[in-house]
Amino acid sequence: MTLTREDLVDAAPADFWVACRDNGWQKSTAGLCRSFVQANLVVLPKSDAFDFLRFCQRNPKPCPVMEVLDPGDPQPRATAPGADIRTDLGRYSVYRNGRLDVEVDDINHLWTGEMTAFLLGCSFSFEYPLRKAGLPVRHVEQGTEVPVFRTNRECAPAGPFAGHLVVSMRAMPGELVAKAVEITAAHPEVHGAPVHVGAPEQLGIGDIARPDWGEPVQFCEGDVPMFWACGVTAQQVALESAPPLMITHSGDCMFMTNIPLE
Amino acid sequence: MTLTREDLVDAAPADFWVACRDNGWQKSTAGLCRSFVQANLVVLPKSDAFDFLRFCQRNPKPCPVMEVLDPGDPQPRATAPGADIRTDLGRYSVYRNGRLDVEVDDINHLWTGEMTAFLLGCSFSFEYPLRKAGLPVRHVEQGTEVPVFRTNRECAPAGPFAGHLVVSMRAMPGELVAKAVEITAAHPEVHGAPVHVGAPEQLGIGDIARPDWGEPVQFCEGDVPMFWACGVTAQQVALESAPPLMITHSGDCMFMTNIPLE
Repeated sequence: MTLTREDLVDAAPADFWVACRDNGWQKSTAGLCRSFVQANLVVLPKSDAFDFLRFCQRNPKPCPVMEVLDPGDPQPRATAPGADIRTDLGRYSVYRNGRLDVEVDDINHLWTGEMTAFLLGCSFSFEYPLRKAGLPVRHVEQGTEVPVFRTNRECAPAGPFAGHLVVSMRAMPGELVAKAVEITAAHPEVHGAPVHVGAPEQLGIGDIARPDWGEPVQFCEGDVPMFWACGVTAQQVALESAPPLMITHSGDCMFMTNIPLE
Repeated sequence: MTLTREDLVDAAPADFWVACRDNGWQKSTAGLCRSFVQANLVVLPKSDAFDFLRFCQRNPKPCPVMEVLDPGDPQPRATAPGADIRTDLGRYSVYRNGRLDVEVDDINHLWTGEMTAFLLGCSFSFEYPLRKAGLPVRHVEQGTEVPVFRTNRECAPAGPFAGHLVVSMRAMPGELVAKAVEITAAHPEVHGAPVHVGAPEQLGIGDIARPDWGEPVQFCEGDVPMFWACGVTAQQVALESAPPLMITHSGDCMFMTNIPLE
């Protein structure tokens, strides 16, 4: 059976998990299971897990912890009971020693009793309240991926984990910037208030039209760039800290939790 | 030099640290350095630290993490730069295998490169906004210690760490209960909203006049008991989980951070 986006827009998370596990779904989760919270995935051996959790605790804006699974346990018992994080995402990136080694569609072959999974908040979750409040989300309107940039800001390190903050950018009409701050500040579990508004060069971003991940977005007249801490920071940290093995979700193939957006 | 409470009420945290380190201060911190945030202390060997941090992450109401120090580092670089958690608290409780072994006034002799310190939020910090909003805090009015109770509720376990939720109780006029909820809900970093209001027997509390820690409080007519998750939960967990070694602050001798209350 070949699934289309339309089959999954209003699907339950459990149907999405099966789509990944048994039907080879490997595409973006943007707009899928649209009333549920999505999450970034990071998997590390237990020997690195305490250092990484301390990293998250020190950098709650890019890495807001939703759940830390017990070492060896592939089931997110708090946020997605019944799911298996080894198979129920579309695609995984496997980093070894600071390089993207391979992308795979399950991680059963890499799983041991030492593997420890982290689920981190994702900004897809705050786009819903933004849109519900009538604020434009340009990349959704334009049908493109959210633009994401590496910045010149260093995260607070913990043990071997260190790296530059990564941000997602949304173009917002100037008169709605305050409202967008207010709405996202109320969601610290998904990156919270923006880290910067208006001056990309202050973050070391040279060309707003050339994101490091995702796609450029068209600004409308009077739009101002707003920058939020982004879960891709964890992948940047994998590149810069070079742990022997670190697995993440790939691109915008996020993990789907069972938590309703409201 | 003999210090009195009056010397420390408006002291800077650094002066309080010196009072503990060099002048043998061992009394309650209630009302000291009154414009600064106080914290619960837990120290564990690194081998238990990831399990305990997962326990905190799963039980954010009793164990809201303010800072996790690097293993072997006695200086809280984020919340109290310049302090030394081995000497700068009044008194420490040393738990071994689930029993309170000894109380000491410094932990230099127990410190190794493996020792890992956690600072957790403390409800002393939300009494200040309560009082500022004009709400009565009965145990402060009566000059007694806040009453604290063990409940029948199990915390979410993590690895070997498990135990019953411990709560602090405040008597509040019924018409101010909603306001007290609103104010404390805005402070998730210090236990947040109450876990229960009005029916102590639902928490397994048999006699409100006989707290498990602290002192009983006199109710005024129309007062309702309100219960907040309490950092003493970490000490209850030390008793129930029986790790080989776990050190905490003693009683109400909290750690003083450099973070202003406002």
